[in-house]
Amino acid sequence: MSSSSRLDQLITALCCLPGIGRKSAQRISYHLLQRNRHGARDLASALQLAMDEIGHCIRCRNFTELELCVICSNNNRDKSLLCVVESPADVFAVEDAAYRGVYFVLMGHLSPLDGVGPEDLGLEKLDEIMKEGEVKEVIMATNSTVEGEATAHFISEMVRKNKIKVSRIAHGVPVGGELEYIDSGTLSEALSGRREI
Amino acid sequence: MSSSSRLDQLITALCCLPGIGRKSAQRISYHLLQRNRHGARDLASALQLAMDEIGHCIRCRNFTELELCVICSNNNRDKSLLCVVESPADVFAVEDAAYRGVYFVLMGHLSPLDGVGPEDLGLEKLDEIMKEGEVKEVIMATNSTVEGEATAHFISEMVRKNKIKVSRIAHGVPVGGELEYIDSGTLSEALSGRREI
Repeated sequence: MSSSSRLDQLITALCCLPGIGRKSAQRISYHLLQRNRHGARDLASALQLAMDEIGHCIRCRNFTELELCVICSNNNRDKSLLCVVESPADVFAVEDAAYRGVYFVLMGHLSPLDGVGPEDLGLEKLDEIMKEGEVKEVIMATNSTVEGEATAHFISEMVRKNKIKVSRIAHGVPVGGELEYIDSGTLSEALSGRREI
Repeated sequence: MSSSSRLDQLITALCCLPGIGRKSAQRISYHLLQRNRHGARDLASALQLAMDEIGHCIRCRNFTELELCVICSNNNRDKSLLCVVESPADVFAVEDAAYRGVYFVLMGHLSPLDGVGPEDLGLEKLDEIMKEGEVKEVIMATNSTVEGEATAHFISEMVRKNKIKVSRIAHGVPVGGELEYIDSGTLSEALSGRREI
């Protein structure tokens, strides 16, 4: 217990941040009170605004405070290329790789044990988008985990039924990687996915 | 840039937390939006309340939303024992060691190079408290750094002028510590501060 109940409340509230325990929360509280009250006030209002206003894009399901996110409403993006990812963080990563198409964010992956089925991933909306006829290719960029692969497989079946081309991002040696340190599963994928040069 | 300017604002605001970079801020934002909007709203209001209401105790200078903090206003504390510490975090630490006296929080240490002089540490208030006559012993619990020692030395001169007993917390081998791994300065202090058993 500290000398102030407001401070205790702040410390407890900070513990809701992932990776922040009680000791770090205490250190952060003192730092803000002593050195950055202005930043803390800004953070409070940014949190409030973000939680109140940010919802999901009605088309791609990514986080946005608009009805249609800036990527979906951008006419310079290639609408014939649709990249399916698991989370908004993945959109960030793919954007960095200079991708110019549009996205569909699943907000999770198929996981029957956790009760996550196709309806939780918004696959009806994805089907709707494909039926509009603008999409020419769907790129499956789910994670390379068991659940990610299963989700990719399930969705690719769905895409094929719509007679649209479907592809999976390549698996192989990371750029800058050394063969000696690559696991055998990745190396086997790299060999079978070799390209003529 | 993300797909949402509100999200960008939140990520930038989170970077004001010590030890949180842009990548962690992004991860935290997604976590809060996806899994804990309630916790984030609580954090926003706790931050706002703490920054608005928490000031300094008029007696010990510790953080509190009251005029007089809960330690200073507690009649069960031993008012004849005054412990001088550098920061509110130190009060936390000394409280854990089952100390039952009161505190005086300097909110820093003497540092002429940074322009921190006696007036910035509230030493006038400390002098005032000593002149009230209730304090019988002042324990100097500043850090064992060059600045901490200099501050302790300066304040102890002041206490002596008020004809009050002044003591310094002991330096020596930490409980559970092994001699082999203790630095020579600490071991030398431990030897000169030995006690008869």
